[in-house]
Parts: sequence; structure tokens; C-alpha cells
Amino acid sequence: MFKQKIQEFREACYVLFGFRIDMIGQQFKLKSMFAEKPSDTLLFSKQDDDEFILLENEYSKSLSKEIHAFLTTCHSIPAFLSHLTLDLFNNQTYLN
Amino acid sequence: MFKQKIQEFREACYVLFGFRIDMIGQQFKLKSMFAEKPSDTLLFSKQDDDEFILLENEYSKSLSKEIHAFLTTCHSIPAFLSHLTLDLFNNQTYLN
Repeated sequence: MFKQKIQEFREACYVLFGFRIDMIGQQFKLKSMFAEKPSDTLLFSKQDDDEFILLENEYSKSLSKEIHAFLTTCHSIPAFLSHLTLDLFNNQTYLN
Repeated sequence: MFKQKIQEFREACYVLFGFRIDMIGQQFKLKSMFAEKPSDTLLFSKQDDDEFILLENEYSKSLSKEIHAFLTTCHSIPAFLSHLTLDLFNNQTYLN
């Protein structure tokens, strides 16, 4: 029952926030439904103090300074991911 | 173990997307970490075809036309919630 509930929760997150989430131990791999490439994933690591930090990878390094500022200056992951989602959404809408 | 995993997943969603999510049957109640009032919640209902629809309440009716357009015109819940998050985040940052 709980296993099914996790699955429902993951599905709901995908529909609501637009990200497929994979929990790998204390790491969370996020992939946007609007991603341009399958390899465009973000990896967050949960620290001992429950803080989440974005691990650097090719994709994270490719994001604009403007988007990164929400993490580095504003210290807000939700604002960072929201900005990224709108950015990808607008690109997709524009391309279509 | 799965019960604990759901809890970890909910916590991660809160940190990553900024929404506290409560699953009540086929309904999902969302409350932003940037909400101005405790009663500012959004209720999504999962339909038989797995589509999610936003149920009308006082809070949903109070949102701007611009934010609603992401649902009604663009048909994108992730874009709608991202826009809402940035809106609330900016308001809070401005007020502080």
C-alpha cells in the first residue's frame, strides 16, 4: 500500500511540478518534463542538517547566471526550480 | 520503511518546490511555504483519466488572471505553480 502511495506521489509531483524525481539514498535526481535532452538532470544532495545542495554537473553548469542567482543570491531552491521550469516551458512553447 | 520514504519524499518536495502536499484520496492539497495566510491552499483533483484539475476555492479565485492563464490558456499546471511560487517569493522578498 505504501509502495503504491509513493508511486502516486511521484506521479503527482510530475504532473504538478513538472519534474520526475528519483530518490537515490540522500540524493534526489530531477528531470524536467520540458527538458531538451534526456541527460538534462539536476542532482540535489540532502546534507546532515537537512539542507539541500545542488551538485555540479554538465547541465547545472549550462544554466544561465540569472537562474543560478536564485540559488546563490536568493538561496531559494523553489524559486530556482520555478524559474527554470518557466524558462524551459517558454522555450518549448516558442519552439512549437 | 515505505512510510518513512513517503515522509522523506514529502519533505523533499517542500524543500525543492516550496509546497507542502497532502494526499487525501484522489485529491492533493498544496500549501506554499511563501503563503501569506494558512488558509491559502490549492486543491487539485485527480480525474479518472489521470488528469489533474484545480478545484475552485476562495484562494484560487483570488489569484490574478495572469497566473490563471497558465492553466486556462497554456494548460500547464507546472507553469502555473512556478509562476505562483515566483510571485509569492517576490512579494515576500519585497515585504522583508
